[in-house]
Amino acid sequence: DHYIICGFGRIGSLICKEFKANGLKFVVVEKDGDTLEKIKGESYLHMRGDATQDESLLKAGIKRARGLISVVTSDTENVYITLTARGLNPDLYILARSGEEGSDIKLKRAGANKVVSPYLIGGSRMAQSVLRPNVVDFIEIATGSEHMDLQMEEITIPHHSAFVGETLVSSGFRKEIGVIIVGIKKTHGKMVFNPHSQAKIEGGDTLIILGEPGAITKLDDLVARPATDEVIKQHRREHSDHEK
Amino acid sequence: DHYIICGFGRIGSLICKEFKANGLKFVVVEKDGDTLEKIKGESYLHMRGDATQDESLLKAGIKRARGLISVVTSDTENVYITLTARGLNPDLYILARSGEEGSDIKLKRAGANKVVSPYLIGGSRMAQSVLRPNVVDFIEIATGSEHMDLQMEEITIPHHSAFVGETLVSSGFRKEIGVIIVGIKKTHGKMVFNPHSQAKIEGGDTLIILGEPGAITKLDDLVARPATDEVIKQHRREHSDHEK
Ligand SMILES: [Ca+2]
Ligand SMILES: [Ca+2]
Repeated sequence: DHYIICGFGRIGSLICKEFKANGLKFVVVEKDGDTLEKIKGESYLHMRGDATQDESLLKAGIKRARGLISVVTSDTENVYITLTARGLNPDLYILARSGEEGSDIKLKRAGANKVVSPYLIGGSRMAQSVLRPNVVDFIEIATGSEHMDLQMEEITIPHHSAFVGETLVSSGFRKEIGVIIVGIKKTHGKMVFNPHSQAKIEGGDTLIILGEPGAITKLDDLVARPATDEVIKQHRREHSDHEK
Repeated sequence: DHYIICGFGRIGSLICKEFKANGLKFVVVEKDGDTLEKIKGESYLHMRGDATQDESLLKAGIKRARGLISVVTSDTENVYITLTARGLNPDLYILARSGEEGSDIKLKRAGANKVVSPYLIGGSRMAQSVLRPNVVDFIEIATGSEHMDLQMEEITIPHHSAFVGETLVSSGFRKEIGVIIVGIKKTHGKMVFNPHSQAKIEGGDTLIILGEPGAITKLDDLVARPATDEVIKQHRREHSDHEK
Protein backbone atom coordinates (compact mmCIF):
# COMPACT_ATOMS: atom_id res chain seq x y z
CA ASP A 1 0.00 0.00 0.00
CA HIS A 2 3.04 2.31 -0.16
CA TYR A 3 5.21 3.76 -2.91
CA ILE A 4 8.97 3.34 -3.30
CA ILE A 5 10.74 6.43 -4.64
CA CYS A 6 14.22 5.63 -6.00
CA GLY A 7 16.42 8.73 -6.06
CA PHE A 8 16.08 11.98 -4.12
CA GLY A 9 17.31 14.44 -6.75
CA ARG A 10 15.37 17.50 -7.89
CA ILE A 11 12.54 15.41 -9.36
CA GLY A 12 12.48 12.85 -6.54
CA SER A 13 12.23 15.53 -3.87
CA LEU A 14 9.39 17.24 -5.75
CA ILE A 15 7.45 13.98 -5.93
CA CYS A 16 7.96 13.40 -2.18
CA LYS A 17 6.57 16.88 -1.46
CA GLU A 18 3.42 16.27 -3.56
CA PHE A 19 2.91 12.78 -2.13
CA LYS A 20 3.21 14.06 1.42
CA ALA A 21 0.76 16.91 0.73
CA ASN A 22 -1.73 14.33 -0.56
CA GLY A 23 -1.26 11.87 2.30
CA LEU A 24 0.38 9.06 0.30
CA LYS A 25 2.68 6.63 2.11
CA PHE A 26 6.17 6.27 0.62
CA VAL A 27 9.79 5.34 1.35
CA VAL A 28 12.80 6.90 -0.40
CA VAL A 29 15.74 4.69 -1.46
CA GLU A 30 18.93 6.67 -2.01
CA LYS A 31 22.54 5.52 -2.13
CA ASP A 32 24.34 8.86 -1.94
CA GLY A 33 25.34 9.95 1.57
CA ASP A 34 25.17 13.72 0.94
CA THR A 35 21.72 13.40 -0.59
CA LEU A 36 20.60 11.30 2.38
CA GLU A 37 21.50 14.22 4.65
CA LYS A 38 18.99 16.38 2.75
CA ILE A 39 16.22 13.78 3.22
CA LYS A 40 16.79 13.78 6.98
CA GLY A 41 15.90 17.49 7.04
CA GLU A 42 12.53 16.62 5.47
CA SER A 43 11.52 13.82 7.88
CA TYR A 44 10.51 11.45 5.07
CA LEU A 45 10.74 7.71 5.62
CA HIS A 46 13.95 6.64 3.86
CA MET A 47 16.71 4.05 3.66
CA ARG A 48 20.23 3.96 2.33
CA GLY A 49 20.52 1.49 -0.51
CA ASP A 50 21.21 0.84 -4.18
CA ALA A 51 17.83 0.43 -5.86
CA THR A 52 19.33 -1.64 -8.69
CA GLN A 53 19.87 -4.42 -6.13
CA ASP A 54 17.18 -6.97 -5.16
CA GLU A 55 17.95 -6.75 -1.44
CA SER A 56 17.42 -2.97 -1.34
CA LEU A 57 14.02 -3.20 -3.03
CA LEU A 58 13.02 -6.16 -0.86
CA LYS A 59 13.96 -4.20 2.24
CA ALA A 60 11.86 -1.29 0.95
CA GLY A 61 8.88 -3.68 0.84
CA ILE A 62 8.51 -4.12 -2.92
CA LYS A 63 6.43 -7.30 -2.55
CA ARG A 64 3.54 -5.40 -0.95
CA ALA A 65 4.17 -1.96 -2.52
CA ARG A 66 1.57 -0.23 -4.69
CA GLY A 67 4.06 1.43 -6.98
CA LEU A 68 7.70 2.34 -7.62
CA ILE A 69 8.98 5.60 -9.05
CA SER A 70 12.44 5.42 -10.58
CA VAL A 71 13.93 8.91 -10.77
CA VAL A 72 17.69 8.54 -10.41
CA THR A 73 19.77 10.72 -12.75
CA SER A 74 21.16 8.03 -15.03
CA ASP A 75 18.96 6.40 -17.69
CA THR A 76 20.99 3.21 -17.45
CA GLU A 77 20.26 2.92 -13.74
CA ASN A 78 16.57 3.74 -14.21
CA VAL A 79 16.35 0.90 -16.74
CA TYR A 80 18.16 -1.43 -14.34
CA ILE A 81 15.93 -0.46 -11.40
CA THR A 82 12.83 -1.00 -13.56
CA LEU A 83 14.04 -4.47 -14.62
CA THR A 84 14.86 -5.45 -11.02
CA ALA A 85 11.53 -4.15 -9.69
CA ARG A 86 9.47 -5.85 -12.40
CA GLY A 87 11.24 -9.15 -11.69
CA LEU A 88 10.36 -8.92 -8.00
CA ASN A 89 6.72 -7.85 -8.41
CA PRO A 90 4.87 -8.48 -11.69
CA ASP A 91 1.80 -6.43 -10.65
CA LEU A 92 3.60 -3.30 -9.43
CA TYR A 93 2.86 0.08 -11.05
CA ILE A 94 6.25 1.36 -12.25
CA LEU A 95 6.75 4.99 -13.28
CA ALA A 96 10.17 5.93 -14.66
CA ARG A 97 11.95 9.08 -15.71
CA SER A 98 13.62 9.20 -19.13
CA GLY A 99 16.53 11.54 -19.91
CA GLU A 100 18.19 10.91 -23.26
CA GLU A 101 16.14 10.31 -26.39
CA GLY A 102 15.41 6.64 -26.97
CA SER A 103 15.56 5.60 -23.32
CA ASP A 104 11.76 5.70 -23.04
CA ILE A 105 11.47 2.66 -25.30
CA LYS A 106 14.05 0.80 -23.22
CA LEU A 107 12.27 1.71 -19.97
CA LYS A 108 8.95 0.41 -21.34
CA ARG A 109 10.66 -2.75 -22.57
CA ALA A 110 12.15 -3.21 -19.08
CA GLY A 111 8.62 -3.14 -17.65
CA ALA A 112 7.69 0.48 -16.84
CA ASN A 113 3.95 1.23 -16.98
CA LYS A 114 4.54 4.90 -17.71
CA VAL A 115 7.59 6.91 -18.70
CA VAL A 116 7.92 10.67 -18.29
CA SER A 117 10.60 12.71 -20.06
CA PRO A 118 11.11 16.12 -18.43
CA TYR A 119 12.98 17.38 -21.52
CA LEU A 120 10.17 16.36 -23.84
CA ILE A 121 7.47 17.86 -21.63
CA GLY A 122 9.54 21.01 -21.03
CA GLY A 123 10.24 21.53 -24.73
CA SER A 124 6.62 20.95 -25.67
CA ARG A 125 5.43 23.35 -22.93
CA MET A 126 7.83 26.04 -24.21
CA ALA A 127 6.69 25.66 -27.83
CA GLN A 128 3.02 25.74 -26.73
CA SER A 129 3.70 28.88 -24.64
CA VAL A 130 4.34 30.66 -27.94
CA LEU A 131 1.77 28.82 -30.11
CA ARG A 132 -1.15 28.70 -27.62
CA PRO A 133 -0.29 30.96 -24.65
CA ASN A 134 -3.84 31.01 -23.26
CA VAL A 135 -4.22 27.23 -23.41
CA VAL A 136 -0.93 26.92 -21.48
CA ASP A 137 -2.16 29.42 -18.87
CA PHE A 138 -5.42 27.51 -18.58
CA ILE A 139 -3.67 24.16 -18.06
CA GLU A 140 -1.18 25.60 -15.57
CA ILE A 141 -4.04 27.05 -13.54
CA ALA A 142 -6.18 23.90 -13.75
CA THR A 143 -3.38 21.52 -12.76
CA GLY A 144 -1.48 23.74 -10.30
CA SER A 145 -2.43 23.87 -6.66
CA GLU A 146 -1.67 27.60 -6.26
CA HIS A 147 -4.67 28.98 -8.15
CA MET A 148 -7.92 28.49 -6.30
CA ASP A 149 -10.19 29.58 -9.16
CA LEU A 150 -10.05 26.35 -11.09
CA GLN A 151 -9.06 22.74 -10.67
CA MET A 152 -9.10 19.66 -12.88
CA GLU A 153 -9.93 16.54 -10.91
CA GLU A 154 -11.14 12.97 -11.32
CA ILE A 155 -13.96 11.44 -9.28
CA THR A 156 -15.09 7.81 -9.50
CA ILE A 157 -18.82 7.12 -9.13
CA PRO A 158 -19.44 4.43 -6.46
CA HIS A 159 -21.85 1.67 -7.50
CA HIS A 160 -24.27 2.65 -4.71
CA SER A 161 -24.27 6.34 -5.76
CA ALA A 162 -27.62 8.09 -6.14
CA PHE A 163 -26.48 9.28 -9.57
CA VAL A 164 -26.03 5.86 -11.19
CA GLY A 165 -28.48 5.71 -14.10
CA GLU A 166 -28.89 9.48 -14.36
CA THR A 167 -27.79 11.55 -17.34
CA LEU A 168 -25.29 14.42 -17.08
CA VAL A 169 -28.11 16.96 -17.43
CA SER A 170 -30.49 15.26 -14.98
CA SER A 171 -27.67 14.98 -12.41
CA GLY A 172 -27.56 18.77 -12.03
CA PHE A 173 -23.75 18.69 -11.81
CA ARG A 174 -23.45 21.60 -14.23
CA LYS A 175 -26.39 23.77 -13.13
CA GLU A 176 -26.50 23.12 -9.39
CA ILE A 177 -22.84 22.49 -8.59
CA GLY A 178 -21.19 24.48 -11.37
CA VAL A 179 -18.69 21.93 -12.66
CA ILE A 180 -18.10 20.84 -16.28
CA ILE A 181 -17.63 17.15 -17.06
CA VAL A 182 -15.05 17.16 -19.87
CA GLY A 183 -14.50 13.41 -20.02
CA ILE A 184 -15.77 10.08 -18.68
CA LYS A 185 -13.44 7.12 -18.32
CA LYS A 186 -15.65 4.05 -18.54
CA THR A 187 -14.88 0.86 -16.57
CA HIS A 188 -13.90 -0.97 -19.78
CA GLY A 189 -11.10 1.58 -20.16
CA LYS A 190 -12.38 3.82 -22.95
CA MET A 191 -12.39 7.59 -22.39
CA VAL A 192 -15.39 9.54 -23.72
CA PHE A 193 -14.42 13.15 -24.48
CA ASN A 194 -16.84 16.10 -24.21
CA PRO A 195 -19.68 13.76 -23.20
CA HIS A 196 -23.17 14.68 -24.40
CA SER A 197 -25.66 16.11 -21.89
CA GLN A 198 -27.72 12.91 -22.32
CA ALA A 199 -24.72 10.65 -21.52
CA LYS A 200 -25.61 8.08 -18.84
CA ILE A 201 -23.68 7.91 -15.58
CA GLU A 202 -22.75 4.33 -14.59
CA GLY A 203 -21.23 2.91 -11.41
CA GLY A 204 -17.45 2.77 -11.71
CA ASP A 205 -17.28 5.68 -14.20
CA THR A 206 -14.47 8.12 -13.52
CA LEU A 207 -15.55 11.67 -14.30
CA ILE A 208 -12.94 14.21 -15.47
CA ILE A 209 -14.10 17.49 -13.96
CA LEU A 210 -13.32 21.18 -14.31
CA GLY A 211 -14.49 23.51 -11.59
CA GLU A 212 -13.71 25.54 -8.51
CA PRO A 213 -12.05 23.46 -5.77
CA GLY A 214 -15.05 24.03 -3.47
CA ALA A 215 -17.50 22.78 -6.09
CA ILE A 216 -15.35 19.70 -6.72
CA THR A 217 -15.28 18.88 -2.99
CA LYS A 218 -19.08 19.25 -2.90
CA LEU A 219 -19.48 16.90 -5.88
CA ASP A 220 -17.09 14.37 -4.34
CA ASP A 221 -19.26 14.30 -1.21
CA LEU A 222 -22.52 14.16 -3.15
CA VAL A 223 -21.70 11.22 -5.46
CA ALA A 224 -20.72 9.08 -2.43
CA ARG A 225 -24.29 9.25 -1.05
CA PRO A 226 -27.12 6.80 -1.81
CA ALA A 227 -30.48 7.91 -3.25
CA THR A 228 -32.13 7.81 0.17
CA ASP A 229 -29.80 10.42 1.66
CA GLU A 230 -31.34 13.74 2.78
CA VAL A 231 -28.59 15.82 1.10
CA ILE A 232 -29.38 14.07 -2.20
CA LYS A 233 -33.11 14.80 -1.80
CA GLN A 234 -32.34 18.48 -1.20
CA HIS A 235 -30.09 18.57 -4.30
CA ARG A 236 -32.90 17.06 -6.40
CA ARG A 237 -35.44 19.62 -5.13
CA GLU A 238 -33.11 22.51 -6.00
CA HIS A 239 -32.40 21.04 -9.42
CA SER A 240 -36.08 20.50 -10.28
CA ASP A 241 -36.89 24.08 -9.12
CA HIS A 242 -34.10 25.33 -11.36
CA GLU A 243 -35.41 23.36 -14.35
CA LYS A 244 -38.93 24.87 -14.07
CA ASP B 1 8.10 38.88 -37.12
CA HIS B 2 10.44 35.95 -36.43
CA TYR B 3 11.67 34.11 -33.33
CA ILE B 4 15.28 33.68 -32.21
CA ILE B 5 16.02 30.31 -30.64
CA CYS B 6 19.26 30.35 -28.61
CA GLY B 7 20.66 26.83 -28.21
CA PHE B 8 19.97 23.68 -30.23
CA GLY B 9 20.11 21.08 -27.45
CA ARG B 10 17.34 18.56 -26.78
CA ILE B 11 14.82 21.25 -25.85
CA GLY B 12 15.88 23.71 -28.57
CA SER B 13 15.56 21.07 -31.30
CA LEU B 14 12.10 20.10 -30.04
CA ILE B 15 10.94 23.72 -30.17
CA CYS B 16 12.27 24.08 -33.73
CA LYS B 17 10.31 21.00 -34.80
CA GLU B 18 7.04 22.33 -33.31
CA PHE B 19 7.60 25.82 -34.73
CA LYS B 20 8.28 24.44 -38.21
CA ALA B 21 5.17 22.21 -38.05
CA ASN B 22 3.13 25.33 -37.19
CA GLY B 23 4.69 27.56 -39.89
CA LEU B 24 6.47 29.97 -37.52
CA LYS B 25 9.58 31.78 -38.80
CA PHE B 26 12.71 31.38 -36.68
CA VAL B 27 16.50 31.44 -36.66
CA VAL B 28 18.70 29.29 -34.41
CA VAL B 29 21.78 30.81 -32.75
CA GLU B 30 24.30 28.18 -31.64
CA LYS B 31 27.98 28.49 -30.79
CA ASP B 32 28.99 24.83 -30.70
CA GLY B 33 30.40 23.45 -33.98
CA ASP B 34 29.25 19.84 -33.49
CA THR B 35 25.72 20.95 -32.63
CA LEU B 36 25.69 23.19 -35.72
CA GLU B 37 26.34 20.10 -37.87
CA LYS B 38 23.08 18.59 -36.51
CA ILE B 39 21.13 21.72 -37.45
CA LYS B 40 22.39 21.51 -41.04
CA GLY B 41 20.72 18.10 -41.35
CA GLU B 42 17.39 19.75 -40.44
CA SER B 43 17.52 22.66 -42.94
CA TYR B 44 16.53 25.24 -40.30
CA LEU B 45 17.70 28.84 -40.72
CA HIS B 46 20.67 29.17 -38.35
CA MET B 47 23.83 31.09 -37.57
CA ARG B 48 26.97 30.41 -35.58
CA GLY B 49 27.28 32.81 -32.70
CA ASP B 50 27.37 33.38 -28.96
CA ALA B 51 23.89 34.58 -27.94
CA THR B 52 25.25 36.32 -24.83
CA GLN B 53 26.90 38.86 -27.18
CA ASP B 54 25.09 41.92 -28.58
CA GLU B 55 26.48 41.45 -32.07
CA SER B 56 25.14 37.88 -32.38
CA LEU B 57 21.62 38.89 -31.37
CA LEU B 58 21.74 41.98 -33.62
CA LYS B 59 22.81 39.79 -36.56
CA ALA B 60 19.89 37.44 -35.72
CA GLY B 61 17.57 40.46 -36.16
CA ILE B 62 16.60 41.04 -32.53
CA LYS B 63 15.40 44.62 -33.21
CA ARG B 64 12.51 43.37 -35.39
CA ALA B 65 12.03 39.92 -33.79
CA ARG B 66 8.75 38.85 -32.19
CA GLY B 67 10.32 36.74 -29.51
CA LEU B 68 13.44 35.06 -28.20
CA ILE B 69 13.66 31.62 -26.62
CA SER B 70 16.73 31.05 -24.45
CA VAL B 71 17.33 27.31 -24.06
CA VAL B 72 21.08 26.83 -23.68
CA THR B 73 22.13 24.29 -21.03
CA SER B 74 23.61 26.65 -18.46
CA ASP B 75 21.37 28.78 -16.23
CA THR B 76 24.08 31.43 -16.01
CA GLU B 77 24.15 31.78 -19.80
CA ASN B 78 20.35 31.82 -20.06
CA VAL B 79 20.29 34.70 -17.56
CA TYR B 80 23.01 36.52 -19.52
CA ILE B 81 21.22 36.00 -22.86
CA THR B 82 17.95 37.27 -21.33
CA LEU B 83 19.69 40.40 -19.96
CA THR B 84 21.38 41.08 -23.30
CA ALA B 85 18.17 40.55 -25.31
CA ARG B 86 16.06 42.73 -22.99
CA GLY B 87 18.63 45.52 -23.28
CA LEU B 88 18.47 45.43 -27.08
CA ASN B 89 14.67 45.20 -27.42
CA PRO B 90 12.43 46.30 -24.53
CA ASP B 91 9.22 44.98 -26.20
CA LEU B 92 10.47 41.51 -27.10
CA TYR B 93 8.68 38.41 -25.73
CA ILE B 94 11.39 36.43 -23.91
CA LEU B 95 10.86 32.80 -22.90
CA ALA B 96 13.64 31.15 -20.91
CA ARG B 97 14.45 27.70 -19.59
CA SER B 98 15.37 27.29 -15.94
CA GLY B 99 17.47 24.38 -14.63
CA GLU B 100 18.57 24.71 -11.01
CA GLU B 101 16.14 25.81 -8.33
CA GLY B 102 16.13 29.58 -7.84
CA SER B 103 17.22 30.46 -11.37
CA ASP B 104 13.61 31.19 -12.37
CA ILE B 105 13.58 34.28 -10.14
CA LYS B 106 16.86 35.48 -11.66
CA LEU B 107 15.59 34.90 -15.19
CA LYS B 108 12.45 36.95 -14.48
CA ARG B 109 14.54 39.68 -12.86
CA ALA B 110 16.74 39.70 -15.99
CA GLY B 111 13.64 40.40 -18.08
CA ALA B 112 12.09 37.06 -19.12
CA ASN B 113 8.32 37.17 -19.73
CA LYS B 114 7.92 33.49 -18.98
CA VAL B 115 10.19 30.86 -17.44
CA VAL B 116 9.74 27.11 -17.88
CA SER B 117 11.53 24.57 -15.66
CA PRO B 118 11.56 21.08 -17.24
CA TYR B 119 12.47 19.50 -13.87
CA LEU B 120 9.57 21.18 -12.12
CA ILE B 121 7.07 20.27 -14.85
CA GLY B 122 8.48 16.74 -15.11
CA GLY B 123 8.33 16.15 -11.35
CA SER B 124 4.82 17.54 -11.12
CA ARG B 125 3.66 15.41 -14.08
CA MET B 126 5.11 12.29 -12.43
CA ALA B 127 3.41 12.99 -9.10
CA GLN B 128 0.11 13.70 -10.87
CA SER B 129 0.45 10.44 -12.85
CA VAL B 130 0.03 8.65 -9.52
CA LEU B 131 -2.43 11.07 -7.86
CA ARG B 132 -4.70 11.78 -10.86
CA PRO B 133 -3.82 9.31 -13.65
CA ASN B 134 -6.95 10.02 -15.71
CA VAL B 135 -6.49 13.81 -15.54
CA VAL B 136 -2.92 13.33 -16.80
CA ASP B 137 -4.15 11.11 -19.66
CA PHE B 138 -6.78 13.69 -20.52
CA ILE B 139 -4.27 16.55 -20.62
CA GLU B 140 -1.72 14.54 -22.61
CA ILE B 141 -4.38 13.71 -25.19
CA ALA B 142 -5.77 17.27 -25.33
CA THR B 143 -2.38 18.95 -25.71
CA GLY B 144 -0.58 16.31 -27.80
CA SER B 145 -0.81 16.32 -31.57
CA GLU B 146 -0.84 12.50 -31.89
CA HIS B 147 -4.36 11.85 -30.63
CA MET B 148 -7.00 13.00 -33.06
CA ASP B 149 -9.97 12.50 -30.72
CA LEU B 150 -9.51 15.68 -28.73
CA GLN B 151 -7.69 18.96 -28.89
CA MET B 152 -7.47 22.02 -26.66
CA GLU B 153 -7.20 25.20 -28.69
CA GLU B 154 -7.65 28.95 -28.42
CA ILE B 155 -9.62 31.03 -30.93
CA THR B 156 -9.95 34.81 -30.87
CA ILE B 157 -13.30 36.30 -31.93
CA PRO B 158 -12.77 39.00 -34.60
CA HIS B 159 -14.68 42.27 -34.00
CA HIS B 160 -16.68 41.77 -37.23
CA SER B 161 -17.69 38.20 -36.27
CA ALA B 162 -21.37 37.23 -36.58
CA PHE B 163 -21.19 35.90 -33.02
CA VAL B 164 -20.31 39.18 -31.28
CA GLY B 165 -23.18 39.94 -28.88
CA GLU B 166 -24.45 36.36 -28.78
CA THR B 167 -24.40 34.16 -25.67
CA LEU B 168 -22.62 30.80 -25.53
CA VAL B 169 -25.94 28.94 -25.77
CA SER B 170 -27.37 31.07 -28.61
CA SER B 171 -24.12 30.68 -30.57
CA GLY B 172 -24.77 26.95 -31.02
CA PHE B 173 -21.07 26.17 -30.49
CA ARG B 174 -21.90 23.30 -28.13
CA LYS B 175 -24.98 21.83 -29.79
CA GLU B 176 -24.22 22.40 -33.49
CA ILE B 177 -20.41 22.20 -33.56
CA GLY B 178 -19.82 19.95 -30.55
CA VAL B 179 -17.11 21.91 -28.75
CA ILE B 180 -17.01 22.94 -25.08
CA ILE B 181 -15.88 26.45 -24.13
CA VAL B 182 -13.96 25.93 -20.88
CA GLY B 183 -12.63 29.47 -20.56
CA ILE B 184 -12.87 32.98 -22.03
CA LYS B 185 -9.90 35.34 -21.88
CA LYS B 186 -11.41 38.83 -22.01
CA THR B 187 -9.60 41.72 -23.74
CA HIS B 188 -8.89 43.35 -20.38
CA GLY B 189 -6.82 40.24 -19.51
CA LYS B 190 -9.07 38.42 -17.07
CA MET B 191 -9.81 34.73 -17.69
CA VAL B 192 -13.36 33.52 -17.00
CA PHE B 193 -13.36 29.80 -16.14
CA ASN B 194 -16.26 27.44 -16.94
CA PRO B 195 -18.29 30.32 -18.42
CA HIS B 196 -22.06 30.22 -17.93
CA SER B 197 -24.27 29.33 -20.91
CA GLN B 198 -25.61 32.91 -20.83
CA ALA B 199 -22.09 34.45 -20.96
CA LYS B 200 -21.86 37.11 -23.71
CA ILE B 201 -19.34 36.76 -26.56
CA GLU B 202 -17.48 40.02 -27.27
CA GLY B 203 -15.12 41.01 -30.07
CA GLY B 204 -11.52 40.31 -29.05
CA ASP B 205 -12.47 37.51 -26.64
CA THR B 206 -10.19 34.46 -26.80
CA LEU B 207 -12.16 31.26 -26.32
CA ILE B 208 -10.45 28.24 -24.74
CA ILE B 209 -12.00 25.27 -26.51
CA LEU B 210 -12.11 21.50 -26.08
CA GLY B 211 -13.22 19.43 -29.04
CA GLU B 212 -12.33 17.21 -31.96
CA PRO B 213 -9.75 18.82 -34.26
CA GLY B 214 -12.32 18.85 -37.13
CA ALA B 215 -14.88 20.67 -34.99
CA ILE B 216 -12.28 23.22 -33.90
CA THR B 217 -11.30 23.93 -37.53
CA LYS B 218 -15.00 24.40 -38.35
CA LEU B 219 -15.44 26.83 -35.45
CA ASP B 220 -12.29 28.75 -36.44
CA ASP B 221 -13.76 29.23 -39.93
CA LEU B 222 -17.23 30.12 -38.64
CA VAL B 223 -16.24 32.85 -36.16
CA ALA B 224 -14.26 34.66 -38.89
CA ARG B 225 -17.44 35.24 -40.95
CA PRO B 226 -19.75 38.29 -40.71
CA ALA B 227 -23.48 37.97 -39.95
CA THR B 228 -24.39 38.37 -43.64
CA ASP B 229 -22.45 35.25 -44.68
CA GLU B 230 -24.45 32.33 -46.15
CA VAL B 231 -22.59 29.74 -44.01
CA ILE B 232 -23.60 31.69 -40.90
CA LYS B 233 -27.24 31.79 -42.02
CA GLN B 234 -27.20 28.01 -42.53
CA HIS B 235 -25.67 27.51 -39.05
CA ARG B 236 -28.41 29.64 -37.50
CA ARG B 237 -31.18 27.69 -39.27
CA GLU B 238 -29.75 24.38 -38.02
CA HIS B 239 -29.41 25.74 -34.50
CA SER B 240 -32.97 27.10 -34.35
CA ASP B 241 -34.32 23.76 -35.71
CA HIS B 242 -32.37 21.99 -32.99
CA GLU B 243 -33.75 24.27 -30.28
CA LYS B 244 -37.39 23.59 -31.25
CA1 LIG C 1 -5.68 25.11 -9.64
CA1 LIG D 1 -4.79 15.88 -29.34
